[in-house]
Amino acid sequence: MTLDVIVIGAGGTVGAAVAGALEAHGHRVVRASRRGPARVDLTEPATVDALLAAHGPVDAVVCCAASGGTAPVAGSTDAAFFSGLDGKLTGQVELVRRALPHLRDGGSITLTSGTIPDTLRDAALGRLINAGIEAFVPAAARELPRGVRLNTVSPGWIRETLISLDMDPAPGTPLDEVAVCYLEAVEGSARGRVFTLD
Amino acid sequence: MTLDVIVIGAGGTVGAAVAGALEAHGHRVVRASRRGPARVDLTEPATVDALLAAHGPVDAVVCCAASGGTAPVAGSTDAAFFSGLDGKLTGQVELVRRALPHLRDGGSITLTSGTIPDTLRDAALGRLINAGIEAFVPAAARELPRGVRLNTVSPGWIRETLISLDMDPAPGTPLDEVAVCYLEAVEGSARGRVFTLD
Ligand SMILES: NC(=O)c1ccc[n+]([C@@H]2O[C@H](COP(=O)([O-])OP(=O)(O)OC[C@H]3O[C@@H](n4cnc5c(N)ncnc54)[C@H](OP(=O)(O)O)[C@@H]3O)[C@@H](O)[C@H]2O)c1
Ligand SMILES: NC(=O)c1ccc[n+]([C@@H]2O[C@H](COP(=O)([O-])OP(=O)(O)OC[C@H]3O[C@@H](n4cnc5c(N)ncnc54)[C@H](OP(=O)(O)O)[C@@H]3O)[C@@H](O)[C@H]2O)c1
Repeated sequence: MTLDVIVIGAGGTVGAAVAGALEAHGHRVVRASRRGPARVDLTEPATVDALLAAHGPVDAVVCCAASGGTAPVAGSTDAAFFSGLDGKLTGQVELVRRALPHLRDGGSITLTSGTIPDTLRDAALGRLINAGIEAFVPAAARELPRGVRLNTVSPGWIRETLISLDMDPAPGTPLDEVAVCYLEAVEGSARGRVFTLD
Repeated sequence: MTLDVIVIGAGGTVGAAVAGALEAHGHRVVRASRRGPARVDLTEPATVDALLAAHGPVDAVVCCAASGGTAPVAGSTDAAFFSGLDGKLTGQVELVRRALPHLRDGGSITLTSGTIPDTLRDAALGRLINAGIEAFVPAAARELPRGVRLNTVSPGWIRETLISLDMDPAPGTPLDEVAVCYLEAVEGSARGRVFTLD
């Protein structure tokens, strides 16, 4: 069955791979990004509403967008320290709430969390964000109406990202394996699941 | 040893018990609340700075403040749905960052998270908040300077709260057992620990 899917963050490493994998399976994909025609910024809820109104109703919304890097607890400015919270955490929760009316019965929402290696420093806020999403998803999934499913994919380091950072790619998961999880979340029947890859 | 401690949310069920237990152990306690002379609102960072500047340097800051109830994912207003996020999650993280310069070497910060019973509905945001704090605390604790310790206490239902809600008190933890965890966090040597009570 051909599904209508909106991929948010489709210009990123994960988003481009997920959009490509969905198209390779015959689905119709709207590639949304902070730039270009299907513009969306998770920190600006009005752009989320506009995107969904313009392209809905759809069968699936997939969010692979990220923002915010690492920052030390002591000595960062508030803006640097909290930059990921608005986009990745509050933004994705808000996306779930706003996407609901634009999803067909039995449709799905797939978010992105992540698994941070124990050795990574200055990642306390990133851990808060990922744990927050991963606690929210199973609980919120039980509440959603009309059979709408909600899941999250939690990648660890991705091989292609490690290569682009000039790091050892050995511990990384290949991008196509990551994309397969999003496909399973969209095409399968999982509900409230955290797809962990690390 | 007598410690100087600021208790935030000291007018609440948990906060009053914790402040009382600290005083019973001989510590000097500033009882901070949204009302009264030691005024503080976690959603207004300037009031946090003012409280700490007025009463610091101290040996410990304990936060037992909460805000935000439960709200369904679908069909709540944004304000209702997100009301706990600003105070309990962002507010407590912000408190850690702001308290640091006002703590003596080897001092401590103790936050409050919580364990939500599986049966409680409309608690997706509460689960997000508690999981976020409990992921943040161990990671952030490793980063803190000058031996400052960071922990969180995670109560389940408290007996006295169940009684006040006219619910069966049997599954509840007595308030004095909860207060003992905060005492241990302040007086002991735990670092990055989640004290779970359920
Ligand atoms: N790559 C890894 O190794 C790895 C590991 C674990 C978890 N993850 C998670 O996977 C997700 C995707 O990572 P990635 O490696 O693909 O990152 P990426 O290559 O940097 O791509 C991120 C994408 O997110 C978009 N974006 C950022 N902030 C946004 C906002 N506020 N609103 C809308 N779009 C926004 C960017 O869009 P624009 O094109 O509009 O700038 C970009 O296309 C992130 O949540 C990341 O934390 C990645
Ligand atoms: N009681 C339970 O069964 C239970 C179970 C699990 C977890 N917990 C957690 O334990 C903590 C304390 O709960 P409680 O039962 O003691 O609640 P409570 O009796 O309602 O007291 C909460 C206190 O927090 C203060 N407060 C609320 N919002 C605030 C803000 N934005 N800034 C500063 N202070 C604020 C209130 O202060 P004002 O006096 O200024 O209004 C009040 O004194 C909460 O985090 C709660 O989630 C409680």
